[in-house]
Amino acid sequence: MLFYDCATAPSPRRARMFIAEKGLEIETRQVSIADREQLSDAFLAVNPRATVPVLITDEGDTLTENSAISTYLDARFPDKPLMGTTPSEKAQIMMWSSIAEAQGGMPVAETLRNSNPAMKGRALPGPANFEQIPELATRGVARVKLFFELLDGQLQGKQFLTGDSFTYADITAFVFVDFARVIKQRIPEELAAATDWYTRIKARPSAAL
Amino acid sequence: MLFYDCATAPSPRRARMFIAEKGLEIETRQVSIADREQLSDAFLAVNPRATVPVLITDEGDTLTENSAISTYLDARFPDKPLMGTTPSEKAQIMMWSSIAEAQGGMPVAETLRNSNPAMKGRALPGPANFEQIPELATRGVARVKLFFELLDGQLQGKQFLTGDSFTYADITAFVFVDFARVIKQRIPEELAAATDWYTRIKARPSAAL
Repeated sequence: MLFYDCATAPSPRRARMFIAEKGLEIETRQVSIADREQLSDAFLAVNPRATVPVLITDEGDTLTENSAISTYLDARFPDKPLMGTTPSEKAQIMMWSSIAEAQGGMPVAETLRNSNPAMKGRALPGPANFEQIPELATRGVARVKLFFELLDGQLQGKQFLTGDSFTYADITAFVFVDFARVIKQRIPEELAAATDWYTRIKARPSAAL
Repeated sequence: MLFYDCATAPSPRRARMFIAEKGLEIETRQVSIADREQLSDAFLAVNPRATVPVLITDEGDTLTENSAISTYLDARFPDKPLMGTTPSEKAQIMMWSSIAEAQGGMPVAETLRNSNPAMKGRALPGPANFEQIPELATRGVARVKLFFELLDGQLQGKQFLTGDSFTYADITAFVFVDFARVIKQRIPEELAAATDWYTRIKARPSAAL
């Protein structure tokens, strides 16, 4: 297998944490988004949609979405499942990962991409160029604050988002909460359950990679 | 089980098609988004995030995301799998559903919600109110056209998005392509593979529900 990573971006970090938590070692190549390497002819030949992460599997598939990379690895290497074993567990984990993507990941990305001068003309990932929309940056900050409250509500009385086990849903939510530093947002201290959860995950070896 | 549906909205249609394709019959309640019933106290007690679809499972879980509802039903009722059986199949299906959500569903929703006078002050689903951003509507139309091209590329030489079998990925993509009518966009005839695929799915009984 071959894993295309970018050390500075949140999406590939999700796959990197997942691979580490599964205890897998996969040959890795760095793609520098700062140098726009994802738009190079060499990388577009790997993924014409110009995004990382990418996992090339032993079957020869090119997987370009975290949902797909995680689903593949959890199905192929079922030891230490991170996406659940019962129908109920699988559903809860998928649900909270989807919620974290839509309510956390999207607003952080929208704020960064629509306000950072370095991303002028590049307000969306992918091969096409789109201009920044400043209102999206403002809206994103408001939404991230709501996301922190949503997490805190879900984490009442729980160690992790879906119960007592660390899962794919925690990876998704943690990576986006941590990345909110780029828009100067962090979980307010008074949200104790969410703060404790964040601290607990930050201490895992996979979070330091 | 109990399924909260809304006959006019694309997200619950995905779950409705999935349930029908699985051959399941589930007690269903309609939630009228036109009447803002999703914001009623009664429905907020079911889903405080004010979205449909919702599936209440026999285990008592409240599932609020299509990814979760489909994952649950495919795991619990493994006959007629719609999300694959091998790791490779599962990953490809998840990948194309995620791509269709991000590259198709999002732009259609952004265009409708940021241009329709009836959605003034309701530019995002959920309990919080956000103002419309007209630039998002313009951007959405451009992105939907790119999505049609992406689908056509993927469908070259294929009956369905991930190969010879109809799956969850086809449901996701079809529902958003079909819903693009509300922003007056449809697959251009010259994209023959995508047009044929759309016609093929439109003819399935589950698409008429």
